[in-house]
Amino acid sequence: MAGNSFGTAFRFTTWGESHGPAIGAVVDGVPPRLPLTEADIQHFLDKRKPGQSRFTTQRREPDIVKIQSGVFEGLTTGTPISLVIENQDQRSKDYGDIAAKFRPGHADFTYQAKYGIRDYRGGGRSSARETASRVAAGAVARKVLGSGVTIRGALVQIGPHRIDRSRWDWDQIDANPFFCPDAGTASQWESYLDEVRKSGSSIGAVIEVVASGVPAGWGDPLYDKLDSDLARAMMTINAVKGVEIGDGFAAAELSGEDNADEMRADPAGGVRFLSNHAGGILGGISTGQDIVVRFAVKPTSSILSTRQTVDMNGNETEIVTKGRHDPCVGIRAVPVGEAMIACVLADHLMRHRAQCGG
Amino acid sequence: MAGNSFGTAFRFTTWGESHGPAIGAVVDGVPPRLPLTEADIQHFLDKRKPGQSRFTTQRREPDIVKIQSGVFEGLTTGTPISLVIENQDQRSKDYGDIAAKFRPGHADFTYQAKYGIRDYRGGGRSSARETASRVAAGAVARKVLGSGVTIRGALVQIGPHRIDRSRWDWDQIDANPFFCPDAGTASQWESYLDEVRKSGSSIGAVIEVVASGVPAGWGDPLYDKLDSDLARAMMTINAVKGVEIGDGFAAAELSGEDNADEMRADPAGGVRFLSNHAGGILGGISTGQDIVVRFAVKPTSSILSTRQTVDMNGNETEIVTKGRHDPCVGIRAVPVGEAMIACVLADHLMRHRAQCGG
Amino acid sequence: MAGNSFGTAFRFTTWGESHGPAIGAVVDGVPPRLPLTEADIQHFLDKRKPGQSRFTTQRREPDIVKIQSGVFEGLTTGTPISLVIENQDQRSKDYGDIAAKFRPGHADFTYQAKYGIRDYRGGGRSSARETASRVAAGAVARKVLGSGVTIRGALVQIGPHRIDRSRWDWDQIDANPFFCPDAGTASQWESYLDEVRKSGSSIGAVIEVVASGVPAGWGDPLYDKLDSDLARAMMTINAVKGVEIGDGFAAAELSGEDNADEMRADPAGGVRFLSNHAGGILGGISTGQDIVVRFAVKPTSSILSTRQTVDMNGNETEIVTKGRHDPCVGIRAVPVGEAMIACVLADHLMRHRAQCGG
Amino acid sequence: MAGNSFGTAFRFTTWGESHGPAIGAVVDGVPPRLPLTEADIQHFLDKRKPGQSRFTTQRREPDIVKIQSGVFEGLTTGTPISLVIENQDQRSKDYGDIAAKFRPGHADFTYQAKYGIRDYRGGGRSSARETASRVAAGAVARKVLGSGVTIRGALVQIGPHRIDRSRWDWDQIDANPFFCPDAGTASQWESYLDEVRKSGSSIGAVIEVVASGVPAGWGDPLYDKLDSDLARAMMTINAVKGVEIGDGFAAAELSGEDNADEMRADPAGGVRFLSNHAGGILGGISTGQDIVVRFAVKPTSSILSTRQTVDMNGNETEIVTKGRHDPCVGIRAVPVGEAMIACVLADHLMRHRAQCGG
Repeated sequence: MAGNSFGTAFRFTTWGESHGPAIGAVVDGVPPRLPLTEADIQHFLDKRKPGQSRFTTQRREPDIVKIQSGVFEGLTTGTPISLVIENQDQRSKDYGDIAAKFRPGHADFTYQAKYGIRDYRGGGRSSARETASRVAAGAVARKVLGSGVTIRGALVQIGPHRIDRSRWDWDQIDANPFFCPDAGTASQWESYLDEVRKSGSSIGAVIEVVASGVPAGWGDPLYDKLDSDLARAMMTINAVKGVEIGDGFAAAELSGEDNADEMRADPAGGVRFLSNHAGGILGGISTGQDIVVRFAVKPTSSILSTRQTVDMNGNETEIVTKGRHDPCVGIRAVPVGEAMIACVLADHLMRHRAQCGG
Repeated sequence: MAGNSFGTAFRFTTWGESHGPAIGAVVDGVPPRLPLTEADIQHFLDKRKPGQSRFTTQRREPDIVKIQSGVFEGLTTGTPISLVIENQDQRSKDYGDIAAKFRPGHADFTYQAKYGIRDYRGGGRSSARETASRVAAGAVARKVLGSGVTIRGALVQIGPHRIDRSRWDWDQIDANPFFCPDAGTASQWESYLDEVRKSGSSIGAVIEVVASGVPAGWGDPLYDKLDSDLARAMMTINAVKGVEIGDGFAAAELSGEDNADEMRADPAGGVRFLSNHAGGILGGISTGQDIVVRFAVKPTSSILSTRQTVDMNGNETEIVTKGRHDPCVGIRAVPVGEAMIACVLADHLMRHRAQCGG
Repeated sequence: MAGNSFGTAFRFTTWGESHGPAIGAVVDGVPPRLPLTEADIQHFLDKRKPGQSRFTTQRREPDIVKIQSGVFEGLTTGTPISLVIENQDQRSKDYGDIAAKFRPGHADFTYQAKYGIRDYRGGGRSSARETASRVAAGAVARKVLGSGVTIRGALVQIGPHRIDRSRWDWDQIDANPFFCPDAGTASQWESYLDEVRKSGSSIGAVIEVVASGVPAGWGDPLYDKLDSDLARAMMTINAVKGVEIGDGFAAAELSGEDNADEMRADPAGGVRFLSNHAGGILGGISTGQDIVVRFAVKPTSSILSTRQTVDMNGNETEIVTKGRHDPCVGIRAVPVGEAMIACVLADHLMRHRAQCGG
Repeated sequence: MAGNSFGTAFRFTTWGESHGPAIGAVVDGVPPRLPLTEADIQHFLDKRKPGQSRFTTQRREPDIVKIQSGVFEGLTTGTPISLVIENQDQRSKDYGDIAAKFRPGHADFTYQAKYGIRDYRGGGRSSARETASRVAAGAVARKVLGSGVTIRGALVQIGPHRIDRSRWDWDQIDANPFFCPDAGTASQWESYLDEVRKSGSSIGAVIEVVASGVPAGWGDPLYDKLDSDLARAMMTINAVKGVEIGDGFAAAELSGEDNADEMRADPAGGVRFLSNHAGGILGGISTGQDIVVRFAVKPTSSILSTRQTVDMNGNETEIVTKGRHDPCVGIRAVPVGEAMIACVLADHLMRHRAQCGG
């Protein structure tokens, strides 16, 4: 059933396959009179763009976005914004192997099981290429949120190697090819990932995204809670297997005393919390603190080792996935996670305004 | 904005506050001619019912469900099924303290921030009492799924204490007050939780739910993926802070070789997987393997220790949350998690049928 | 598929059958802090209540509404408002004839064809009894709209007899049993309908509802236009077969010159239209003028004459529908039409606020 | 709020302005493995294409559709189908007058009132040019419906001139420039419309669409009734002011005896109705008879006469709408109405399958 849209008040719909002529998104419900240019969107696409270091896929895609509607004389008009990105590097090649066999860990088998057909070229619709459309939609969402809300993501773990949180420095994010906030860890990752890459293997990762400046009051309990929408959003991203808000799974080991974020009066008015175990959300509604979301990305299954599988006829066989792939898809998931969180927040800003004004 | 409904093809809407006259759910989209009685639903409500052991709240609620519509002569008619559960033990008492002060870790502050008003009695709408409505809806969802799909949940961690997975035995689930599948761990939990309870504290937990018998092909990529809907569903449950599918966060540490679930031909026809790191879902679509979902529940913030907070006027103060509460709310979250997963699956069964027939 | 909800930002879901224990509505998304009492709702239910004159069904239903949630100390809290109305006059009788045979012009045949089962008692879910739930939801919607928006309906045609529009007087609406704005026509209808009633027949009608005070700017083109939502809303009411906005079908005979509502500057600021052929909506968005909606109601098929039909086994037979029925169901459709229009407007007030603020 | 999507199980989203680079639709939820080519869609676009006779706008648009996704090797894959149509004849001209003044009867004023901005070039988003996207989506819907369902529209009234229903001949539809099923009336319309056209005026029309072959059982009461979705669908079409199902407003004048469609056993099995006052829908569910929908289209307000209006600064002024316009926009509304009805039916086919199987 129709499932390629995300959001209610701020809603986007994506389309497109990895090796089709183009991919794109239609963003609907955007408030009018927001300044929006292709350059605003391109800025974020460039962060996600493949081929920027040896640690991401070598597919060459300029990922140039075009606005086809919904903007007039540099301002949004309130009508749908159609964004399109042409596919350019659909390297012509023989797809025979992946056409005939299911790659373990990929969606090949399930798409075939569901639809009885699949566009196997480059993974078709299930390719992470689609996430460029999300990043484009996320750039529009940031315009809706305005400059008061800051959304920043970081890679906090690759394989077994975690950052040292005491060295967290947002300024480091753009200083290494990993969106890593800890310079020391970044250089360790570099040699570690080189090893992974050279061996033709791949590895998982954990991303953390922080949204600052979200006022208290966003989120629609009980089934459109801010955190449930965030969890859903993260889990729609390719290869994501886990999501945490605030302390996440570590909260299971906390006592009620330790977990309760105590409150004090803020001299500047309002409330000040003494801690943020909740990750900025209580009862599905934002508290006004930083919103903290973490998600785990599995290693891509496109590796150079031979794996056992079956073919379209149900016969047992083996497969090696050659081609241009990310040794750690988690890296490029950082701007995608940011974009999805921006979309959830823009949606809830507008949903909140619908019911509660302001 | 309206946010109290869950699901698309199979959809339920809940209503009701902790200390209002009743709570309930309207379940819409139910296929016709399914046998359904109040006893079918009561069976699951009884599993969630408070006051069944000293480890859950001592509030006394018989939680008797009544079917008000949508069933005729013992069969569903395809029209909305209204389920209502009267509240009985709204102990008359002075709510002064929680009316005037925000309990840290509770939704008091955020409901007030969002709506400018809140029904503070027993937590109002944000109380876990609402989850009885979900369990009732889940019982209907199980009817939709039929006997081929089995959904079973277990408590796998309380505080720092995890079960020994090598001793997993589903038959133990109903033999202890924790839904614990490992008899040895259950008895350790008993003494541990007694301690927590007597000290007036509380502790978090992790629940795992397994759905067996789901055929390959359910789920609607890219934004209504089976796993994204499951993650959303878990995160709507009170106090949940993290969700994992399959290996979850542990997948971040896996190599592509280890993570790939290899496939062999099943002598009985179809495909047999050699492992299930994916938790039964690839590309947002079920693989036919067991679907494995885990979620973390934070400790309740209703504890006997004094915590710092502010009152409705913004003045600093302290609060102790007296009353009848669960030392480990994770226990009663087990049947709730099962119910939500049943609802997601029923929805996707029907969604799949809409697009792909069969 | 789930289809018993209406609206997006302001949404209600109804449940219940004609001869079940109760009917009701859950109203979700209601802005917080609106004063709301059962008496506010009862006022409108009393207008729709059966048995108030000899021209409506003699079924005796007090239609007492109870608020079960979402209101605290007289104010809405922003959480779902559950409204329930008990059925009382489900006269115990032998349903044999309508259980076994399909009444021509009723939904008996189509419910059976769709669901393979039906609650035949009093028409089950397809009975106009359900419209009481709509009227209750509409009363809540009026609170959302506030006193600036006035929604008033009138019966403008019964069978071939139309009112004289030059004598339109809103004050007459409550002075006759027909919601007729023209006293002269009302007395003619009285004798005409007496004849219809005594002969055991029935007759159709046309209702007109006018909403005043709606500001310019509500409505979400292109597929959630204000007029398309109004048309949908009217067509969900039992027995409605046609809907018009403004000039409606008469617009087909107009020239472009006659149809264009010219504009002048309003001395009080803003724009003044010289006519209202458009019925207050252009391009799916309100103009600020009166919104004018008309809808046609067919005669009830519950009549004392014998009609040819088939039974559940497909055998040809005849049927006479005895019992308590409305000679002109159009009369009681007036408050129902008003209620649905109130719900559409409340939804669009909130939708507009989401995207455009203010 | 986001409002540019239509349908639930079969859903399309449109984007694009009259004088932007392109317009398009994303069609989501399409069942897999349906044969679909650009030619299949082009066939219907060509019926709507402007400039085919002197009675429609002289704008020259080839309206060539391109499929950008969702089709692989000639078959639908179950993923979103992106359809795009480039705008070619955006005649470069001075838009000064319509940029500064509101055209009476157009959406200029309401878009400005709602959004505070509008793309005035050719009517922007409110232009009937968008209906090409609907026709493209409708072509996909017909594939979903299969050959068993036939949807045909006809123009049955232009201004005061109605067809003679006794001469209805579907074969005449393509034999005149009006989609008129009555050859005699078509030739009268020709001279009448020539007059209208030469005088720079315009006139309204009524369209009737008949869907044959729809089985009994489609439609989701009470708020997603088949007829309420059809009414909504028709009312989303530019310039539509009224909708009727079956007898429509004429039903108001019928007695219950006359209105009841009596039933007989069909020798071929099932039920045979002796009449079709209901237009193929009872209780919101299809009866298996022809579904009959009529809708009224107002005259376009783009006329050569001078009309009074105001400008963007609120000053009184006058306007004449020059340019290439349809003397009777109702003509080209015929394929649009067909397309929208196809989309509603495809949606309900799939919705019915979700809940009831088959």
